[in-house]
Amino acid sequence: MAVKIFLDETDIPRQWYNIAADLPGTPNPPLGPDGNPISPDMLAPVFPMNLIEQEVSQERWIDIPEGVLDLLYRWRPSPLRRAVHLEKYLGTPAKIFFKDESVSPAGSHKPNTAVAQAWYNKEFGIKKLTTETGAGQWGSALSHACALLGMECKVFMVRISFDQKPFRKAMMETWGGTCIASPSMETNAGREILAKMPDTPGSLGIAISEAVEAAVTDTTGQTRYSLGSVLNHVMLHQTIIGLEAQKQLKIAGIKKVDTVIGCAGGGSNFAGLAFPFAQDKINGQDIEIIPVEPASCPTLTRAPFAYDHGDVAKMTPMLAMHSLGHDFVPAPIHAGGLRYHGMAPLVSQAVAQGLMDPISIKQLECYEAAMIFARTEGMIVAPETSHAIAATIRKAKEAKEEGKERVIVFNLSGHGLMDLNGYSRYMAGELVNLELSQEELDDTLERSIKGNPVPKL
Amino acid sequence: MAVKIFLDETDIPRQWYNIAADLPGTPNPPLGPDGNPISPDMLAPVFPMNLIEQEVSQERWIDIPEGVLDLLYRWRPSPLRRAVHLEKYLGTPAKIFFKDESVSPAGSHKPNTAVAQAWYNKEFGIKKLTTETGAGQWGSALSHACALLGMECKVFMVRISFDQKPFRKAMMETWGGTCIASPSMETNAGREILAKMPDTPGSLGIAISEAVEAAVTDTTGQTRYSLGSVLNHVMLHQTIIGLEAQKQLKIAGIKKVDTVIGCAGGGSNFAGLAFPFAQDKINGQDIEIIPVEPASCPTLTRAPFAYDHGDVAKMTPMLAMHSLGHDFVPAPIHAGGLRYHGMAPLVSQAVAQGLMDPISIKQLECYEAAMIFARTEGMIVAPETSHAIAATIRKAKEAKEEGKERVIVFNLSGHGLMDLNGYSRYMAGELVNLELSQEELDDTLERSIKGNPVPKL
Repeated sequence: MAVKIFLDETDIPRQWYNIAADLPGTPNPPLGPDGNPISPDMLAPVFPMNLIEQEVSQERWIDIPEGVLDLLYRWRPSPLRRAVHLEKYLGTPAKIFFKDESVSPAGSHKPNTAVAQAWYNKEFGIKKLTTETGAGQWGSALSHACALLGMECKVFMVRISFDQKPFRKAMMETWGGTCIASPSMETNAGREILAKMPDTPGSLGIAISEAVEAAVTDTTGQTRYSLGSVLNHVMLHQTIIGLEAQKQLKIAGIKKVDTVIGCAGGGSNFAGLAFPFAQDKINGQDIEIIPVEPASCPTLTRAPFAYDHGDVAKMTPMLAMHSLGHDFVPAPIHAGGLRYHGMAPLVSQAVAQGLMDPISIKQLECYEAAMIFARTEGMIVAPETSHAIAATIRKAKEAKEEGKERVIVFNLSGHGLMDLNGYSRYMAGELVNLELSQEELDDTLERSIKGNPVPKL
Repeated sequence: MAVKIFLDETDIPRQWYNIAADLPGTPNPPLGPDGNPISPDMLAPVFPMNLIEQEVSQERWIDIPEGVLDLLYRWRPSPLRRAVHLEKYLGTPAKIFFKDESVSPAGSHKPNTAVAQAWYNKEFGIKKLTTETGAGQWGSALSHACALLGMECKVFMVRISFDQKPFRKAMMETWGGTCIASPSMETNAGREILAKMPDTPGSLGIAISEAVEAAVTDTTGQTRYSLGSVLNHVMLHQTIIGLEAQKQLKIAGIKKVDTVIGCAGGGSNFAGLAFPFAQDKINGQDIEIIPVEPASCPTLTRAPFAYDHGDVAKMTPMLAMHSLGHDFVPAPIHAGGLRYHGMAPLVSQAVAQGLMDPISIKQLECYEAAMIFARTEGMIVAPETSHAIAATIRKAKEAKEEGKERVIVFNLSGHGLMDLNGYSRYMAGELVNLELSQEELDDTLERSIKGNPVPKL
């Protein structure tokens, strides 16, 4: 039985899909400190101009340079697999497909944009990239990309993860990257925070502030900053996932997809799979598109579509996005990649426009789904991915109840071989459901969002 | 540029290749405690009869049952990749291909035989398998296989690894396996050793003794033992690697392979790639076949072809194999999978017959090779695999010196994402070269091999 559908290298998509060209509603540009839209020039110390152009582009299709394709070929096209064993276990008439992004050398979808960003930076004459990382997926992916292109990479890793996950540092260093704990003594932002809170565990917001500072203060002019999610050009680079999936579904003889599912933290793996299908939806097809987030960090399901900063120190412009508030600290769930207060503006806008149907799921249901998946399909997935699987199982059960043969496609964003501690703790009964209370929500919105400019729909 | 060659599912090999049918020289059967060849019946409490039949088969080609193919399809055929970036880095005219066995859910070649063994056991009415594991690769693979088939799995894990690598236990448990530290209080073998040495770190030899005892003493009659390497039927199951590679090389337009390389501990990943090419060699083709072992455990390069036991407690029959002595304790290199005193009888016989050219390489050269591979090809490999890469780099450099366009194929037996501690220690300069001294070698051979029956050639 055909359980995986490979796409030939020669059939790899040669353009990315830019949903900005098709998204209904008014564009809401990033706003500077003065409340006015920021110009591309203002971003030039942070990003290379070729990526800034992509960030603001309204072109529907953007050519993938040959140099980027050469990098992507190393693991792409990724397989599309059919979860026949999960289907059988559930006794569902649904056909469940998943795009397997765990096959990249870093084990997740992150390298799709890492190699593209590194390549564009190198084209622009940049020799070094700085970035931040939480659990380590993005820092690993960018280190990997820089290794392939002979560039330097410096990663500010949130201290608590730095201490808890030494293997991530080893991974980055094996690829030639430098990984230091954040807050560090290397930046003003880091020093100021350490002076006030020497024992702080750090946060993604702090690490972003440090990485941006390290890029813009480099006097050689050959250093830029790189972000692994949220921004428009990151969503763009990830659309290769969905574009490949559409070709593979055609090969598999699938005429219509009913449901598309992805977990959503900053939004990039979800958008990567979903945006090409969202285009079909905009063009009139009936497709349900579901971003899945943790109940403890319910950005799309419970936070408003608002203008807010991407980081604690407010070093980034204000972006129009669903946001729980830039200083919100999500509960310590194992799905570290879903612990972000905001959401990609393009995903946020699509949700605000009613194109997508976000849901949130609690931690235990997600781990239960991951265990079922491990024992039926045989793959141990990342805790982030378990959210997509939990939602898939819900939809497959619905299909069973309705007796309908639905086609469900989800994104397997990464494997969980570096996250086995979470599985251990789940099996030992040490994990609990964590949900944001209304009081906490009101409090964080009051603190960070109230009074900010309101994006248009 | 085509850097990977997929094989269509429909082109998967449908028979395993049994080199026993073609190997020159006299067969040397396993010997029982009385020094006489053991009969298949004597193995019946340990293995199911269908696998015992495979173990002693002289048939050249053995059909892969549809049920096993269904399991293998989950990740097979595995990709053959061309290491174009490594070639470029080395400036070699050699074409370097590698078979990527890291794509299995357990991350190595081990599931190829794990699913086959579990399937045959299940066919035979067995409900539970016991086994031992050193670093954890094999215990993970067998737990995975048992999960897919709804069987129980019990793994005795060498205590020092059990303590040092808790994630491996989590992996086995996620797949429903039970993993306990060896020596344990659950077997006579374990209790006796603990009584004498309560603080022992354990050893593979002890763990084998416990796993065999747990199988044969189960009064239900529905438990058997499973071994992840060394035995003939394990080599057989792994030949799918080389058979796929031959098809893929043909697709890539390669007419002649010059050199085949694999790391060798118990011999299974090496044999899996090499045996189909060895058949071509037996039939007259000029192919260099290189098993690579650590200088600290030089079984093929420095130990005699002799009869010896597979375990410390001498619970296994005596096998005709290159052996450093059944109670030899190799130095603590990171390539745990290569720390075995013996070598598969079929590999040993092939080497003794001059069909293969084993070499040993020291630890630092292997890690250096792995670092080069990570930064050129982008993949972080297992420390075991690094031995194959070090040998490949040697041969590619030779090709450069000679100005010859050699075709080299090596087996990438597994990824190193669970072994990053070794990389960390290498980069920190904490690793040293470890080599077996002549005195130690003489001592271990005197202790374990001297006076044993001598196999024929």
